[in-house]
Amino acid sequence: MRVGIIGAGSIGLLFAAYLSRVFDVTVYTRSQEQAAEINQHNVLLQSGTEETIAKVKALPIADWQGSEALTIIAVKQYQLFSIIERLSQLPSMPENILFLQNGMGHLKLLDDINTSNLFVGSVEHGALKENPYTVRHNGIGTTNVAVYKGDPGFLKMFVLAVSNVFPITFHEEYFAMMEKKLIANAMINPLTAILQVNNGALIDNPFYYKVLQNLFSEITAILNLEHPEGYWEHVIKICKKTRDNRSSMLKDIEAKRLTEVDAILGYLLEEANKQGKKLPQLETLYYLIKGIESQGVVI
Amino acid sequence: MRVGIIGAGSIGLLFAAYLSRVFDVTVYTRSQEQAAEINQHNVLLQSGTEETIAKVKALPIADWQGSEALTIIAVKQYQLFSIIERLSQLPSMPENILFLQNGMGHLKLLDDINTSNLFVGSVEHGALKENPYTVRHNGIGTTNVAVYKGDPGFLKMFVLAVSNVFPITFHEEYFAMMEKKLIANAMINPLTAILQVNNGALIDNPFYYKVLQNLFSEITAILNLEHPEGYWEHVIKICKKTRDNRSSMLKDIEAKRLTEVDAILGYLLEEANKQGKKLPQLETLYYLIKGIESQGVVI
Repeated sequence: MRVGIIGAGSIGLLFAAYLSRVFDVTVYTRSQEQAAEINQHNVLLQSGTEETIAKVKALPIADWQGSEALTIIAVKQYQLFSIIERLSQLPSMPENILFLQNGMGHLKLLDDINTSNLFVGSVEHGALKENPYTVRHNGIGTTNVAVYKGDPGFLKMFVLAVSNVFPITFHEEYFAMMEKKLIANAMINPLTAILQVNNGALIDNPFYYKVLQNLFSEITAILNLEHPEGYWEHVIKICKKTRDNRSSMLKDIEAKRLTEVDAILGYLLEEANKQGKKLPQLETLYYLIKGIESQGVVI
Repeated sequence: MRVGIIGAGSIGLLFAAYLSRVFDVTVYTRSQEQAAEINQHNVLLQSGTEETIAKVKALPIADWQGSEALTIIAVKQYQLFSIIERLSQLPSMPENILFLQNGMGHLKLLDDINTSNLFVGSVEHGALKENPYTVRHNGIGTTNVAVYKGDPGFLKMFVLAVSNVFPITFHEEYFAMMEKKLIANAMINPLTAILQVNNGALIDNPFYYKVLQNLFSEITAILNLEHPEGYWEHVIKICKKTRDNRSSMLKDIEAKRLTEVDAILGYLLEEANKQGKKLPQLETLYYLIKGIESQGVVI
């Protein structure tokens, strides 16, 4: 089966490396140069002290035809608009598309996509792009996937097919799945980015832990969670499992890249606004991150 | 007239340097070593490119007798407990005492001090202690003073006497004066310390400015301010005037010293608590600073 991966950042390269063990994978890159680099070197996957070479084809995004059986969209949420526009201009609309963006703000964009099966996923791996063709897998987690629209058959088959090489977990209900990830991201990402600490500091430092607790109360007050405890435990579990990792938002700040703060905190602030409620702590974190981002300076 | 200054940090040295032009000044230091250094070198005052030597006597705090006409307490708020205890053990209680601590939490401690005239002040200078006997005056402001208890006569005379060498501004009403400083400190100090930016960044960066505005709304909701605009303008004025300065809290964090977060934010959180109200943003900042402090690590 042919799989197309749109985006060759850390997550795109990670998926390319693992999925190439089972499928015929093409990654579509933003630049011609990166495609050339990947075609020359293949994708290098570093995990612990191991290094494996994954045979992956690369093409610039301009050459994307949408003909693969499965298309995985692995760009940042703020790059999604241009990808969705491109989707609508493809010679053939891909039949199965899996979106891997953080946050939930992009879900409303998916309704306009005219495809049979639309899946969403949230990635719980730590991955670092070392160079245009090398990715370091430094936090082994899973990828949660669910059907957003269409039939689950294809997605279930895909999960089974890769189960021996790359853990992917099927969920019946996309909303709760995405919400769980969103809450964890909303709490861990901005705090670690502002404090410039590893994820573990948030549970190891009793004062940061108190901030986490207060933030959680604020967030749950606007979301209709059936069992909030489970969401809280999920946050703590992630902090524990990725104790020594730097969050994606911290890495973005350090690399002076745009963060996903709009996708993550922006979505929650919008939700609160719709309900006529306030999220004072989250709003402060939102503007602090926007401010740091706009300075373009690592503190 | 003899003036005693308790504490030879940046503010103690700054006052010693200027007041020694008019009065006979003794500074009382925590350590024997610092007293010896000051007695050997005098106090060196750096201001712009100028450097002046100020003739100042130094004694270790153990030798404090309380016999000076005016005693200025220039220690951090969290060092005040031991100073007040020492006060009660002095052979003679000083007649005129001026307290220069940040925050307002210490005011309740002053009621127990059995002296004739008790004054409070808030310092709006930028000063950096370069070594045990050298202070850099890098932000020229004023010192606001007011009577906390007793007669204003002595304080007014003092303000006049120093007016040619060191600006000190007399205020009729201590509470509003202290509150103004407290609000500015509560907003500028934690934000600059967390973000590790100069004071000017808070007004130059539109996102940080938004955080300032939100914080101000939160604070004014629990204080009974007659004209909030004046307090807001004061904050903005300080950010402008000390644009290139690092706040005292940021300097404390950088030097891995204890900050005055309890004196500043702790007081406001306690006030809110008494009123059964919440200060979610301020509480987040409070715990972030406590967390950074407890890491003892500059980020």
